[in-house]
Amino acid sequence: MIIRLAQHSGYCFGVKRAIGLALDAAQDGKTIYTLGPIIHNPQIVKSLESKGIVAVEDISGVRDSVVVIRSHGITRQELETLQSNGNTIIDATCPYVKRTHEIVSNLVAESYPIMILGDEQHPEIIAMLSYGNDDTTVVTKDLEIGERRWQKLGLLSQTTQNEENLKQLVQKLLTNTSELRVFNTICCATNERQDATKELAKCSDLMIVIGGKNSSNTKMLAKLCSCVTTCVHVETADEIHEYMFCGKSKIGLTAGASTPDYMIISVFNKIKEIYGEMSSASKMEDIPLFKEESC
Amino acid sequence: MIIRLAQHSGYCFGVKRAIGLALDAAQDGKTIYTLGPIIHNPQIVKSLESKGIVAVEDISGVRDSVVVIRSHGITRQELETLQSNGNTIIDATCPYVKRTHEIVSNLVAESYPIMILGDEQHPEIIAMLSYGNDDTTVVTKDLEIGERRWQKLGLLSQTTQNEENLKQLVQKLLTNTSELRVFNTICCATNERQDATKELAKCSDLMIVIGGKNSSNTKMLAKLCSCVTTCVHVETADEIHEYMFCGKSKIGLTAGASTPDYMIISVFNKIKEIYGEMSSASKMEDIPLFKEESC
Repeated sequence: MIIRLAQHSGYCFGVKRAIGLALDAAQDGKTIYTLGPIIHNPQIVKSLESKGIVAVEDISGVRDSVVVIRSHGITRQELETLQSNGNTIIDATCPYVKRTHEIVSNLVAESYPIMILGDEQHPEIIAMLSYGNDDTTVVTKDLEIGERRWQKLGLLSQTTQNEENLKQLVQKLLTNTSELRVFNTICCATNERQDATKELAKCSDLMIVIGGKNSSNTKMLAKLCSCVTTCVHVETADEIHEYMFCGKSKIGLTAGASTPDYMIISVFNKIKEIYGEMSSASKMEDIPLFKEESC
Repeated sequence: MIIRLAQHSGYCFGVKRAIGLALDAAQDGKTIYTLGPIIHNPQIVKSLESKGIVAVEDISGVRDSVVVIRSHGITRQELETLQSNGNTIIDATCPYVKRTHEIVSNLVAESYPIMILGDEQHPEIIAMLSYGNDDTTVVTKDLEIGERRWQKLGLLSQTTQNEENLKQLVQKLLTNTSELRVFNTICCATNERQDATKELAKCSDLMIVIGGKNSSNTKMLAKLCSCVTTCVHVETADEIHEYMFCGKSKIGLTAGASTPDYMIISVFNKIKEIYGEMSSASKMEDIPLFKEESC
């Protein structure tokens, strides 16, 4: 058996930054609030709670407190409420997400109809929409755009979308628009993780995707893997079972942008443990720890 | 044998308009000048000469005359020369081409690098470039863009390009640009002629493309047909010969945007003449004149 980790995986810049800012703010022992989870990883959110960083679902009652804006951002209206209620704001919105708010605002100022590729239920998209105009629409993964024609149209994407989806949408729109202004807002960490995962999946007979079940970018990694080989999506090592490895010899690991290193390591250790039960102990020494090989 | 004409073929709006404007201007018997051919059809250009409409290759000596700007447009510098030499200008630039000059000028004003998809030797592109800035490049049909990355980029196309080429170029550029502002400047007449020609080619065993050998849009029709079936590109009926029809029973005719109806008719008559020699005269009656059928 060989276990390999995708060349790019785990915490991205925006997630590291958000957690760092929250931990810094929590140092004086006061309770700190976030609207919804600071990142889409339930285990990390729970661990942060023990350090006084508490996720709330409604910020209307949060007053005169320290509030960290999560990596996915919040709506313009929510920000205004927080500010008017005397809170100290620490903005941990991922800078790549922040850029999408600026783009949408500029498109509104220039009177462009706006189309956003993404999941309309995702907080990132809900926040983005709050900066839009009356003619701002969300196109989901079915890429359904109907028969409408546009004289001009601004297009951008959820930062964790798959670039292939964006390309396909642009192909469709080119025939229906005189001017199509495309902002490729898919962040480089997303692209890198997706590309590295696809490469590893091609030479693996089992891919294990580690990360929050509520994480868009992790779910996208699982989807990409499923198109290539057998894939399981787990949040923790507890979800790893012996039956998964029956007949499998090349195991690939990858992890979403909100998955910390220790979770990847714990999954790896769990596989080693199972492998020890499945074969001779001497062979265990041969398992390369996070060996990165080109396919 | 069946002869069918593509549903959309021959003179487009811009060409009809240019010839109409030139003929109107020539009514009082004075010599009228155009810089280069008014349209890319040598036979029509020759015929217009007999009406006093003369194509010149250098306008520096043209003074105090009536000058018709051809459908493909001229450079900004040439226009300034004509104006400063006391000429009366009749602007027969196709409005779709004129729009590209405005787009390029606006992109320059907003400091965008500019990319144009087209043939850099074509007068339309030469004119377009004259409105550009130092960072205006032409990408030809090989779609070679190199490794460069752009923060922002304006993209437009020669009006007679194939939309598939534009789509492929956009696919490539999406990965290399943060903002890609695409203006689909391919004119609807071009699209209609290309689509109708491809449809007819699919159910023909010989396609005859009629139009100037120097006409970009006619050459594009010939290229599209050649990918589907046997194709010949002719300017006049004189180029139609009996050997072309050996073993062929479904003949498709199409014509570029600068090809007048009488040329299409003369080609059709020449085929009928050959067909008469090849089979019984009675069958000739069965040939549907410009029958339009769905495949």
